[in-house]
Amino acid sequence: MALRRLPSDKPQTSVRDSIDRRTALGHLSAMAAAAAWPANLSDAARVSSEPQPTSPSGGSRLRKIATEEAFSIPEVATAVRDLVRQGGRNLDLKLLKLIYDAPPAAAGTQQVLKGSRDALAGTLLPRLLDFDTIRLAEMDASGVDMHVLSLTMPGVQMFAPDMAVEFARLSNDRLRDAVRRHPARFTGLASFAPQDARAATNEMERAINSLKLNGFLVNSHTNNAYLDETRFWPILEAAEALGAPLYIHPRAPSDGMAAPFSDYRMEGSIWGYGIEAGTHAVRLMLSGVLDRFPRLRIVLGHMGEAVPFWLWRLDYMAAPGSRAALKNQLKPSEYFRRNFAITTSGLEDPGVLRLCIDKAGIDNVMWAIDYPYQPTAPAVAFLESAQLSDSEREMVAHRNAERIFRIADA
Amino acid sequence: MALRRLPSDKPQTSVRDSIDRRTALGHLSAMAAAAAWPANLSDAARVSSEPQPTSPSGGSRLRKIATEEAFSIPEVATAVRDLVRQGGRNLDLKLLKLIYDAPPAAAGTQQVLKGSRDALAGTLLPRLLDFDTIRLAEMDASGVDMHVLSLTMPGVQMFAPDMAVEFARLSNDRLRDAVRRHPARFTGLASFAPQDARAATNEMERAINSLKLNGFLVNSHTNNAYLDETRFWPILEAAEALGAPLYIHPRAPSDGMAAPFSDYRMEGSIWGYGIEAGTHAVRLMLSGVLDRFPRLRIVLGHMGEAVPFWLWRLDYMAAPGSRAALKNQLKPSEYFRRNFAITTSGLEDPGVLRLCIDKAGIDNVMWAIDYPYQPTAPAVAFLESAQLSDSEREMVAHRNAERIFRIADA
Repeated sequence: MALRRLPSDKPQTSVRDSIDRRTALGHLSAMAAAAAWPANLSDAARVSSEPQPTSPSGGSRLRKIATEEAFSIPEVATAVRDLVRQGGRNLDLKLLKLIYDAPPAAAGTQQVLKGSRDALAGTLLPRLLDFDTIRLAEMDASGVDMHVLSLTMPGVQMFAPDMAVEFARLSNDRLRDAVRRHPARFTGLASFAPQDARAATNEMERAINSLKLNGFLVNSHTNNAYLDETRFWPILEAAEALGAPLYIHPRAPSDGMAAPFSDYRMEGSIWGYGIEAGTHAVRLMLSGVLDRFPRLRIVLGHMGEAVPFWLWRLDYMAAPGSRAALKNQLKPSEYFRRNFAITTSGLEDPGVLRLCIDKAGIDNVMWAIDYPYQPTAPAVAFLESAQLSDSEREMVAHRNAERIFRIADA
Repeated sequence: MALRRLPSDKPQTSVRDSIDRRTALGHLSAMAAAAAWPANLSDAARVSSEPQPTSPSGGSRLRKIATEEAFSIPEVATAVRDLVRQGGRNLDLKLLKLIYDAPPAAAGTQQVLKGSRDALAGTLLPRLLDFDTIRLAEMDASGVDMHVLSLTMPGVQMFAPDMAVEFARLSNDRLRDAVRRHPARFTGLASFAPQDARAATNEMERAINSLKLNGFLVNSHTNNAYLDETRFWPILEAAEALGAPLYIHPRAPSDGMAAPFSDYRMEGSIWGYGIEAGTHAVRLMLSGVLDRFPRLRIVLGHMGEAVPFWLWRLDYMAAPGSRAALKNQLKPSEYFRRNFAITTSGLEDPGVLRLCIDKAGIDNVMWAIDYPYQPTAPAVAFLESAQLSDSEREMVAHRNAERIFRIADA
């Protein structure tokens, strides 16, 4: 296969200079075993094939499909750790270091879980690597029926192209295995390597037609490039042709916008993630690619990354033809209704939910937890307590996800 | 006075190598005379000392104080034009070229006003330079009582420090003159030169105590630096000590975050302005400067630059002490309620207004038009038709502005 090398984030790890998998797996297994789980979690850690019954507001049990739920696999985790150890200026390395290369002392006790999100990061890896035990127990404890799983940030996008292609395949195979083991509990969004658009489209076709996965997830920019660039159009074309949605998950701002986010940890979930992913979405709207691929479905997390807030101004300032540089044939709000869906990950605010339902349409809003980065129980409480009609709540909790991600009814 | 030179946007214009004011004034006067005003505007162009009566929803006339209304003066306009002609990579130059150095053919006809915001930009300068004729006529035509005036983007912040200091003084003097000529119609926010913090604080003191202006306006970053940097603390200290609010108005993203905004005119009001100003606000929250200056009042336009949308996530991810790099002692939402006020400029969306009232508090939301960049009549219609109680509408229309900017009751 011909590999094109793209201008890239430094550092990159190539397959040749990288990992001893046996060593890596041993290391990570030890880390997972050493992590002290909170007592309440250990109590709940029994594997189940069915969620626990709960009593949501409607009386009858509400099916809950969480749509932005992260996993990793040991090989990718080790390669990410190696990237961290190489160092570099990419702002994602700050969080990745805490997750994948934290000093053992930081690993989870109940106290640090409560006290500091920096310390919490040091406890995430075992949860990311687990499909069958911790994850199902946490789902059961809160009555969560299903995780729509996706390879966690930054996916394969910081690796050299050949390694990225290999890891996307491996990750998708493992995801398929997890879904086969627990078909009532897991579905999945496939990874692909935008670094190699041709390999990416091959893998996308395989992921849907052979592995029977439910869509795709990309972690915003790849080596500082956005999907409106023509070299990525085959990826957008494939997603549209396969009828499978493309979730644009955040990562830290690309190097060309990094400077103001480099203080106060603003690069990540505090602020930079939303700016990065929202900017990516607006580029797609204004570049005209959504006119070229009118049936492409983009999913945004975090209540649409503030795009719903800005739609009036986007429509006013970026009406078709209003500026020479604009390529859009429709108003941004028209694309938003036609080409986008959003999830509630990490923004459990009932007022924002209502605004987003008004802007995106009740058909296009899906519930998410952002496991393991956000706790499950409050996300469930948010879903069950938000001011929604029974019909609206069912759409947000599961019906929209069933339609958009082609998930079988319960 | 000792002038410190800061790392700067290129290009800069210094006083010594710059303008022949006589030539400049002649040029701009000719431009203004040549601009063909729309017929309905010419019809309305009579000077008045009182707004026209209107019939707002409440029955009795609603006082309307617009709080983000732009002006320029010929000397500054000429210097900005010279900056444009020097060229450079700063993204603000794209819009500034259209406004200050547009080919004459672009100047205003009714047709281009309707057709293209690029062409509209070529018609703005006469409106920016006028206090006494066009502006009052447009206010009267829609029943607007008062403009809270401010030197338009980028203020004096792209000039060399000595020139910036001089132009801030000159601009503030002219603003004071306009307010004296029309005390019932104009109040003003003073300019200052962050490039020279000591001169800035002197000018801030003069603007409030001698010129009797009502606050300050800064156009976000100055030479890519943000106000949380220690060298700017004297400016924040002065604003707090003077009890005068500091409006942080957008400009295009700073050079260190410019790259993804350099396509599709995303640097400006379409998307980049909100990112730039919102990021500035979040830096102030997370840097701890609002603990150092707890009575500082910051005003944000554009419904708070999406900060209200993100507050739940900001609180969750940036709780005090939750990450080693965070310096904030309060939750972001606590600063938002205590230290911020917002205006409705350029985002006339009733749903967003309701969200913002919930987040900022009804005491802290003020109406604005963003004259002459946005049309007056729709902004008035938005104010008069939004779903607000009579009491809420009065607070947004004038009472909050009267309190925050110390404007006398009508």
